[in-house]
Amino acid sequence: QDRIGPQEHQHLRYNPLKAEWILVSPHRALRPWSGQIEKVAPNVVPKFDPTNPLCPGVKRSSGIVTPDYKSTYVFTNDFPALLEEGPEPEESDDPLFQVKTAKGTCRVICYHPHSDVYIDSLSNAQVVDIINEWIRQIDQLGEKYAWVQIFENRGASMGCSNPHPHCQIWASSFLPQEVKLKEENQLEYYKRHNRPLLFDYARKEIAKKERIVVENDDWLVVVPYWATWPFETMVLPKKLLQRFSQTSETQRKSLAEILKKLVVKYDNLFDCQFPYSMGWHGALTGDKNDVDQPHWTFHGTYLPPLLRSATVKKFMVGYELLAQSQRDLTAETAAAIRAAATGRHGSVSEA
Amino acid sequence: QDRIGPQEHQHLRYNPLKAEWILVSPHRALRPWSGQIEKVAPNVVPKFDPTNPLCPGVKRSSGIVTPDYKSTYVFTNDFPALLEEGPEPEESDDPLFQVKTAKGTCRVICYHPHSDVYIDSLSNAQVVDIINEWIRQIDQLGEKYAWVQIFENRGASMGCSNPHPHCQIWASSFLPQEVKLKEENQLEYYKRHNRPLLFDYARKEIAKKERIVVENDDWLVVVPYWATWPFETMVLPKKLLQRFSQTSETQRKSLAEILKKLVVKYDNLFDCQFPYSMGWHGALTGDKNDVDQPHWTFHGTYLPPLLRSATVKKFMVGYELLAQSQRDLTAETAAAIRAAATGRHGSVSEA
Ligand SMILES: O=P(O)(O)O[C@H]1O[C@H](CO)[C@@H](O)[C@H](O)[C@H]1O
Ligand SMILES: O=P(O)(O)O[C@H]1O[C@H](CO)[C@@H](O)[C@H](O)[C@H]1O
Repeated sequence: QDRIGPQEHQHLRYNPLKAEWILVSPHRALRPWSGQIEKVAPNVVPKFDPTNPLCPGVKRSSGIVTPDYKSTYVFTNDFPALLEEGPEPEESDDPLFQVKTAKGTCRVICYHPHSDVYIDSLSNAQVVDIINEWIRQIDQLGEKYAWVQIFENRGASMGCSNPHPHCQIWASSFLPQEVKLKEENQLEYYKRHNRPLLFDYARKEIAKKERIVVENDDWLVVVPYWATWPFETMVLPKKLLQRFSQTSETQRKSLAEILKKLVVKYDNLFDCQFPYSMGWHGALTGDKNDVDQPHWTFHGTYLPPLLRSATVKKFMVGYELLAQSQRDLTAETAAAIRAAATGRHGSVSEA
Repeated sequence: QDRIGPQEHQHLRYNPLKAEWILVSPHRALRPWSGQIEKVAPNVVPKFDPTNPLCPGVKRSSGIVTPDYKSTYVFTNDFPALLEEGPEPEESDDPLFQVKTAKGTCRVICYHPHSDVYIDSLSNAQVVDIINEWIRQIDQLGEKYAWVQIFENRGASMGCSNPHPHCQIWASSFLPQEVKLKEENQLEYYKRHNRPLLFDYARKEIAKKERIVVENDDWLVVVPYWATWPFETMVLPKKLLQRFSQTSETQRKSLAEILKKLVVKYDNLFDCQFPYSMGWHGALTGDKNDVDQPHWTFHGTYLPPLLRSATVKKFMVGYELLAQSQRDLTAETAAAIRAAATGRHGSVSEA
């Protein structure tokens, strides 16, 4: 007990992007686990599966045949959560029964024609192709929509239903809740300090060196001080950057490099294909597409569920859903474990 | 398409308790599912398991032997997320690295000495015993702590690691995030309308009859208009009630009755032990224990993950975590399905 610093005891930490507190209970990591055991993803996915609609030449349920693509391939989701058109709901003036119109579109981005590859096994140039596709999509859909959410669910335990390497885009006429919070809190901070919140944050993390997982000249990956998920990370630019499209060619190349390293570190941690949801957040689009938004810092977020091993995850359940986010290890411990995660996975040198 | 009302098309709904919007995409329920399949809980748990520390006479990992209890049994969690004492964290004046003290205690309530029973198979009087234990705990811990969260995780897929019927209590020196939101938004509504938000809401749901799952003289169970989880429900009192301890003997009996019916309806829906997290929220405790809080309505919340069957759940992942809550069926459809759910499970008559 004497050797444990005060940060290894229970405390609350503040997430300035969401303006909320998280309960950190590191002493709890010692408890035994006799609960649910996750399945480990099969490591062998065939390069081509004639029944997988994301593979070149296979017919999708809509009847459309996926073309013989060579790099990335983008199509509109056959079962989208958001449609471009639809009847408007009847509005109500009762504050307890408020309804609003939602319009949008959902797309799928296949990363590569082969099913048996992933970010870490692709070349730098191929990952840059994916990055360029992300940017193209945000720019194109951002002309029309207030928000373009790019996200990837990796692994069956994160709701992914197709093993082919891909991510999704849900573009919407409205600003989603999480984004609204980030908009408000970044704006508030900027008004007070005249510098972007996450830019200040990145500078301080570089100086503190306590939560860094991996970095290069342009990018920094940290376990945020206010992380909720056990091995959550944030990808931050080292220079001022409001939106994805403002990245230079050099920054795209170095982003590809660091994303590959990040995946290798995740996969090495518990020697498995580490499941996660990840996505990108940057300055608002639609009406705001051409507006300078100096309070915004473009960044990526990785939310992985595993806690103790490839088969034991953190459950965000009773207390977390009804009361408050809670975590079982500190961000510093998570960062130290992650930074040290080298092993047999992946083709990227860990030097 | 013609027979579908506008509410069966995509729209946003407002949750007035959290002041946030939810995306409703009912057309999406049609998509095929080839993702993760949950395990169905084994229906056979032995009445007594000599290796289960929640059973009478079994030694826990702390060395304490669980006594030969006859009704409910409460003990302090051997691996608590919150401890009563501990060193204070070093505070910082940097807005990006905010830390605060957290104190508290965690307890476990065993519902009954037998492992093979649950709310639906217990007698009304036995469920009243559980209700009285909930109230006793909130009252006792509420003298010291600002908030007493009672919650139950039912089923392995909701992080429950012990099949013996039990729930948990996490009492804290701080007001958790979800509670802070409910406090703020109920107070705001009360100031504006001079009536409690959830009392108004219950009255309107009784009149509308569109989202009721089950009701009796004292209690109403609805799928809230702003439900996030597919078959989420809320248990609301029909008379003004700020906190659990204010319930009359009659109200406790009728609550036992309705909780039993609710479990039967859940289990009948997909013919399984329906997993969920559930818990109770009411007026603040600690300093506020004796303060009149007319804006508060005591209520229960059930958050169940299943979507389509006993094995296919809704994943709250990429879009939901990074952008906004999204659901695949309307609250009205969920309520209609739930209200009609009769079948072979449970011992409560569904007349
Ligand atoms: O204490 P338990 O039941 O082992 O733990 C369960 O409930 C807790 C409170 O919701 C969660 O933090 C854990 O992730 C979950 O596994
Ligand atoms: O569209 P998919 O990949 O089948 O669906 C997955 O991601 C969506 C967006 O996060 C979630 O709503 C679904 O629950 C999940 O299964």
